[in-house]
Amino acid sequence: MTASPLSVSCPAPVAETEHVLLGHGSGGLLSAELLRDVILPAFGPAAEPDRPLEDAAVVRLPAAEVVMSTDSFVVDPLFFPGGDIGSLAVHGTVNDLAMMGAVPRALAVAFIVEEGFGLDELARVSRSLGRAADAAGVRVVTGDTKVVGRGAADRLFITTTGLGVRLPAARPSAGRVRPGDVLLLSGPIGLHGVTIMSTRSGLGFETEVGSDSQPLHHVVAAAVAAGGDAVHALRDPTRGGVASALNELAAASGAGVVVEETALPVPEPVAAACDLLGLDVLHVANEGCLLAFVAPERADAVLAAMRSCPESAGAVRIGRAVAEHPGRVVVRTGIGAERVLDMLVGEQLPRIC
Amino acid sequence: MTASPLSVSCPAPVAETEHVLLGHGSGGLLSAELLRDVILPAFGPAAEPDRPLEDAAVVRLPAAEVVMSTDSFVVDPLFFPGGDIGSLAVHGTVNDLAMMGAVPRALAVAFIVEEGFGLDELARVSRSLGRAADAAGVRVVTGDTKVVGRGAADRLFITTTGLGVRLPAARPSAGRVRPGDVLLLSGPIGLHGVTIMSTRSGLGFETEVGSDSQPLHHVVAAAVAAGGDAVHALRDPTRGGVASALNELAAASGAGVVVEETALPVPEPVAAACDLLGLDVLHVANEGCLLAFVAPERADAVLAAMRSCPESAGAVRIGRAVAEHPGRVVVRTGIGAERVLDMLVGEQLPRIC
Repeated sequence: MTASPLSVSCPAPVAETEHVLLGHGSGGLLSAELLRDVILPAFGPAAEPDRPLEDAAVVRLPAAEVVMSTDSFVVDPLFFPGGDIGSLAVHGTVNDLAMMGAVPRALAVAFIVEEGFGLDELARVSRSLGRAADAAGVRVVTGDTKVVGRGAADRLFITTTGLGVRLPAARPSAGRVRPGDVLLLSGPIGLHGVTIMSTRSGLGFETEVGSDSQPLHHVVAAAVAAGGDAVHALRDPTRGGVASALNELAAASGAGVVVEETALPVPEPVAAACDLLGLDVLHVANEGCLLAFVAPERADAVLAAMRSCPESAGAVRIGRAVAEHPGRVVVRTGIGAERVLDMLVGEQLPRIC
Repeated sequence: MTASPLSVSCPAPVAETEHVLLGHGSGGLLSAELLRDVILPAFGPAAEPDRPLEDAAVVRLPAAEVVMSTDSFVVDPLFFPGGDIGSLAVHGTVNDLAMMGAVPRALAVAFIVEEGFGLDELARVSRSLGRAADAAGVRVVTGDTKVVGRGAADRLFITTTGLGVRLPAARPSAGRVRPGDVLLLSGPIGLHGVTIMSTRSGLGFETEVGSDSQPLHHVVAAAVAAGGDAVHALRDPTRGGVASALNELAAASGAGVVVEETALPVPEPVAAACDLLGLDVLHVANEGCLLAFVAPERADAVLAAMRSCPESAGAVRIGRAVAEHPGRVVVRTGIGAERVLDMLVGEQLPRIC
């Protein structure tokens, strides 16, 4: 692997190697050096671990409900327009906390690395992860690194686990969607999935679009500040896209959902890529937008609050919850026809996140 | 893959397959079915997830210091005498929490599965994980499953992240080892590493020994009840063995450490395997014992408390912290000679845990 331009600031490679060795996962001297010389400096201000390094971290939280979420990230390629596996691993878990109305506070990071992976790439991913955590205001409090032999993993997998504290006014839950609720979407859809697909297969769309990967907890805080308990349910439509997220919410709450197809914000290159590949954009993964069901009397206020955040300046109303067809999601097209929107069956694209 | 005897109670395989498909990681219908039909039932009483399934879990903790730890498990083979990757993934993280004086309360579980892995094996691992969590009194509150293509991972990796609440009297820290402290060891060493090595290479020792994998939080609770704040430091000597754990504690605290070689409890088959393989048993991994540095005036009480627990009935005094050779670990042999005990350099055996 060639040195990346970012590797200039990488500390002197441990044990005079430029690649990850099995010994870096031994728990012995090389592990300690990898942590000290590569990973912790790369995490930057987001890490600042307690000294000495312990087997676990003490997290001081205010008296509140603690929210916990975990996700493994296996995205291929590791680097893509708009982000990389490191920033994605922060945003994905921060957003899962945010969907429960929680402010992210602490992050645990576990690397599984294939022997031979470039130390410069590991440092680059770690720096990106550290920057993303710092920008989201969440500290990396503990971590782990395992190394497996060549061929036993594809370069790098990251599992992040987040702890957050629930906003006092927030009680969003998949089970709380009610007929009459207004369905809001915080921004354009399809960007992450199309970017990954296009980058992986060299289709060229990746020069026009980038992943929407971003943290959404400020959007949630603004929505909850404006809507309080009237923010009934939040979900970020990642793997499986808007279709799977809405079907989960419909199934969990027993409400029906109607989506107005013409209201969906689909960037032109995303629409073109979906046409070319025969994909329904509603099944394509996103990493930086959210769906919100809000009681109708607070919907305008919540929409305005979302639009006041740069992350969700393009928020729109895309549908509503209904008493008809309980547990099912229906898309109404521009000419008034309706079609049932199912969850994704099978796999549109493996390793999208 | 052949059906395991344990697969009888496995629910009807989702989508009429007996193997994990890429679609099981899609976030869509197959993912939902896998979770509902295979993983959650297998977790058993340890799971009892909040309904509906959300992106994250709310964890109610008493007002106390929260401790967080994460570890990835990549052990090969997945099943071995004394345990499997599922039980190990619980014990490893529970023990990291325990080493900080915490009682485990909640566990997040993330699976990375290779396409084609047997659903019966996934259910078997999940059942073992659920049983181990239930036995340790810790709930599986949230999780994630990703599927990667054939060859992109070796069957199954598990990352567990634990939350615990610190015992009020407990302040163990790597930095608190003081000259004069007595060094206790809770049980025999070398069992896990020798079991994995022997199972993997068919050496035959695995018929005589099994992994020591077990949760240690009851041992810690007993030690802290007897010793309180006099329990200065705790560490479980996993990857890198007793040698790496003691070197970490010596380096963090600046104390020297002396280990009496004749006091070390080394089971006969472990000694024989180490002789055959040319290994120092002090570098071999353990998953069910701990090292404790205790102020001398409380050492006998703590040792007695440890011996009263079945998990540490064989606890012994194996050395002490000294003012000489600060930051270094020395082994004194039966004839009074001394040798420096270094951290493991390089890798004794990859994928030991």
